[in-house]
Amino acid sequence: MTFDLLARDPATKARAGLLHTAHGAIETPIFMPVGTAGTVKAVSQQVLRTDVQAQIILGNTYHLYLRPGLEVLQAAGGLHRFNGWDGPILTDSGGYQVFSLSNTRKIKEEGVTFRSHVDGSKHLFTPEGVMDIQRVIGADIIMAFDECTPWPCEYDYARRSLDLTHRWLQRCIQRFDATEGLYGFEQNLFPIVQGSTFKDLRVQSAEFVAAQGRAGNAIGGLSVGEPAELMYEMTELVCDILPADKPRYLMGVGTPANILENIALGVDMFDCVMPTRNARNGMLFTTQGIVNITNKKWATDFTPIDPSLPGVASTFYSRAYLRHLFQCKELLGPQIASAHNLAFYLWLVREARTQIVAGTFGPWKDRMVQQVMTRL
Amino acid sequence: MTFDLLARDPATKARAGLLHTAHGAIETPIFMPVGTAGTVKAVSQQVLRTDVQAQIILGNTYHLYLRPGLEVLQAAGGLHRFNGWDGPILTDSGGYQVFSLSNTRKIKEEGVTFRSHVDGSKHLFTPEGVMDIQRVIGADIIMAFDECTPWPCEYDYARRSLDLTHRWLQRCIQRFDATEGLYGFEQNLFPIVQGSTFKDLRVQSAEFVAAQGRAGNAIGGLSVGEPAELMYEMTELVCDILPADKPRYLMGVGTPANILENIALGVDMFDCVMPTRNARNGMLFTTQGIVNITNKKWATDFTPIDPSLPGVASTFYSRAYLRHLFQCKELLGPQIASAHNLAFYLWLVREARTQIVAGTFGPWKDRMVQQVMTRL
Repeated sequence: MTFDLLARDPATKARAGLLHTAHGAIETPIFMPVGTAGTVKAVSQQVLRTDVQAQIILGNTYHLYLRPGLEVLQAAGGLHRFNGWDGPILTDSGGYQVFSLSNTRKIKEEGVTFRSHVDGSKHLFTPEGVMDIQRVIGADIIMAFDECTPWPCEYDYARRSLDLTHRWLQRCIQRFDATEGLYGFEQNLFPIVQGSTFKDLRVQSAEFVAAQGRAGNAIGGLSVGEPAELMYEMTELVCDILPADKPRYLMGVGTPANILENIALGVDMFDCVMPTRNARNGMLFTTQGIVNITNKKWATDFTPIDPSLPGVASTFYSRAYLRHLFQCKELLGPQIASAHNLAFYLWLVREARTQIVAGTFGPWKDRMVQQVMTRL
Repeated sequence: MTFDLLARDPATKARAGLLHTAHGAIETPIFMPVGTAGTVKAVSQQVLRTDVQAQIILGNTYHLYLRPGLEVLQAAGGLHRFNGWDGPILTDSGGYQVFSLSNTRKIKEEGVTFRSHVDGSKHLFTPEGVMDIQRVIGADIIMAFDECTPWPCEYDYARRSLDLTHRWLQRCIQRFDATEGLYGFEQNLFPIVQGSTFKDLRVQSAEFVAAQGRAGNAIGGLSVGEPAELMYEMTELVCDILPADKPRYLMGVGTPANILENIALGVDMFDCVMPTRNARNGMLFTTQGIVNITNKKWATDFTPIDPSLPGVASTFYSRAYLRHLFQCKELLGPQIASAHNLAFYLWLVREARTQIVAGTFGPWKDRMVQQVMTRL
C-alpha cells in the first residue's frame, strides 16, 4: 500500500492524497460507509458504487466473526467475494463493539472475554486472535485491537488503558507480520492512537504509534461524547505527530461539520454510522442543510431531495414522496434516505478534495460548516 | 386504450397480446407488481424498471386515499408524478381493502362506511366517490368499486352481493363516463366479475360485465381461500364469456403455478403480493423451484440466487450472502429477495408469452408448473 500526497491547502492542514490498495485507489480525504455485517444498511452494492460513489467500505470484525462466522467467510474466499464488493474494504478490529455491544465483558492482559449480543455465547478476543480473524475476513486495511475508553474517563484509567492498548498493539504487529493474507493480496495493519482527552497521553500514544512505521495510522476514542472543541484539540495534536506521508484515519467521526473541521486539521479518512442511522430515522443531510423529512412542511414539496447532488436517490425522488414513504413506514424510505445521505457525505469529501487541490479549502470549509448544519 | 391480440396457443386458451396505454405498451400475459401505497415494497423505481423489467405496476385506492391523501396526489399531478414511475399504472378500487383492512365497515346501497386502519377516522366510499378518487390518483387503468365476497360464502349472500356489485358497476360507469382524466391522458375503467364459486352467478356476472363493452375486464373474488381447481373452473367459465378482443385481468392471483394455469385458460393480466410478501419472509421463487433462504443448507452455497434469470438481484448476490442478510435481519435482504422474486415473476410471464407465440406453451406450461413448485 502506498500513499501519494498530492496537495496541501495553504490556509489549513488539509491534504489531498491517493491511497493505493490491492483493490484500487482511494482519493483522500475520503468517507467510508459503514457496512457492519458485510452490508451497508439498506444500500445495495450497485447503489453504493454508482449513486453513492463509495470508494471503500467498512466491515466489522465483531459482527462478521459472530455472523456469518469465519467458516463461511473463509469458504467464500473472504469478505470481498462474500458480499460482492470488489473495491477496497477496511475492517474495524471489534474492540469498540466488544465494549459497546456485548454483555459481561472482562478485560485481562490476554484479551477480552465477552458474551455475544446475538446468542449469549462466550468468546475471547486477543490481539493475536483478532489479527487471525481479520486475515480470514480479508479486508485491505485491518485495525489493531485496542481498548476504546469512554468519555469522561479518569486519568488513571486512561493511562493504564493506553498502556494495555500499546502492549496489545505490539502483539498485533507481531502476529500480523508473522502471517500472510489468505487470498493472494496484500493487507495492511493500522495502529490506533488512544489516550482519551488527555494531551500528554495523546502525545505519548501518537509518538508510540508513529514509531511503528505502518502504512497508515488511526485515531480512536474520539466522538464518544466529548465536546467537539476537545475532539479537534486532540486531533490536531495527534495529526501533528503522526507522519505526514501516511494516511490518517479518524475513527467513528462524525457530523458533516466534524468531518470538514478534521480535514482542516490533517485527517484523511473517516467512517461513521451517522449518515445511514440518521437516514433510517428520516434525517437528511443536504447541500443546503438538514432536513427532517417526517416534518409536515415537506408534504407537498415536490422538489428533489437535493438536486445539487449526483445520484438517483437525491435527484429522482421528491421530498413529498420520501416523506410519504416514511409516514407509511415503507422500506423504500430508508433505502432512498440512506443512499442520499451517503451520496452527500461522499460529495462533501470529494468537494473538499477539489477545494484543497485548488487551494481554496479554508474559506470554503468555513462557509460549508455553517451551511450543512442549517436546519431547513 | 387498444389491445392487439397477436397469437393464440394451439393447445390451450393462452393468448399473447399488446395493450397500449397512455404511458406505453404492455406485453401480455403480464404480471403487475403491487405498489400498494405508491411503492412496490423494498424495490426502487430504478430496480423495478431495469432489473425486474416491470411494465405496469399497481397502486391501491384505499391506501393512497388515506396516505398521502388526495390533496397531495392532486398537487403532485397524480401518482405517476408523485412516485416517478412513468410507465402504466393500475389502481385497485379499494373495495377489497375496505373489507379486509378497515374496522367496523358497513355496507349499504349507497356505499361502504369504514374506519381507517391508520387512525380510526370514519370514511364513506361510494361507487361515484371511488371513481373521483381514481381520477385524482390518475392511473391508466382504474377498477370498478365492488364487493369481494369471502370464501366460503352462502349462495344467497353471494347472489345479493353480486346484484349490489352490478348496481355499483353501473354507477361507476355512469360517473366515469361523465368525467375526464385530470392530467391530460386517457384513463380506462375495468369492470369486475364476481359471483364467488357459483357457476350460475359467475356466468351471469361475466355476461353482465361483457355487455358493458369496456376496454378490459377483470375477474375478482378468487384466490380467497378456495381450492385451486375451483378457481380454475371459475376462470375458464368466465374467460369463455368475456370478449376475446379485450384483456382479461385476474385479480390477486397468485402462485407461479396459478399464473401459468390461468394463462392457459385465457387470462392476460395478474397481480399478487405473494412475490414481495414471501420475499420479505425469505421465500424465493426460482427457475429451479422454491428456496427458503433462511435454511441452514444455503449457508455456504456461493452460487447466485438464480443464474438463469436476468437482473442484478438474481445473479450478483449468492444464496449464502442473502441467507446471512436474513439471519442478521439486514434491510438489504428483503430488497434483494423482493427484486429477485419480481424478476422471476416477470421472467415467467415473458417466457410464457414467448412459448405462446412459438405455439409451444401447452407442454412447456405442464413442465414448468411442476418445476416452479419443487422445493429445493
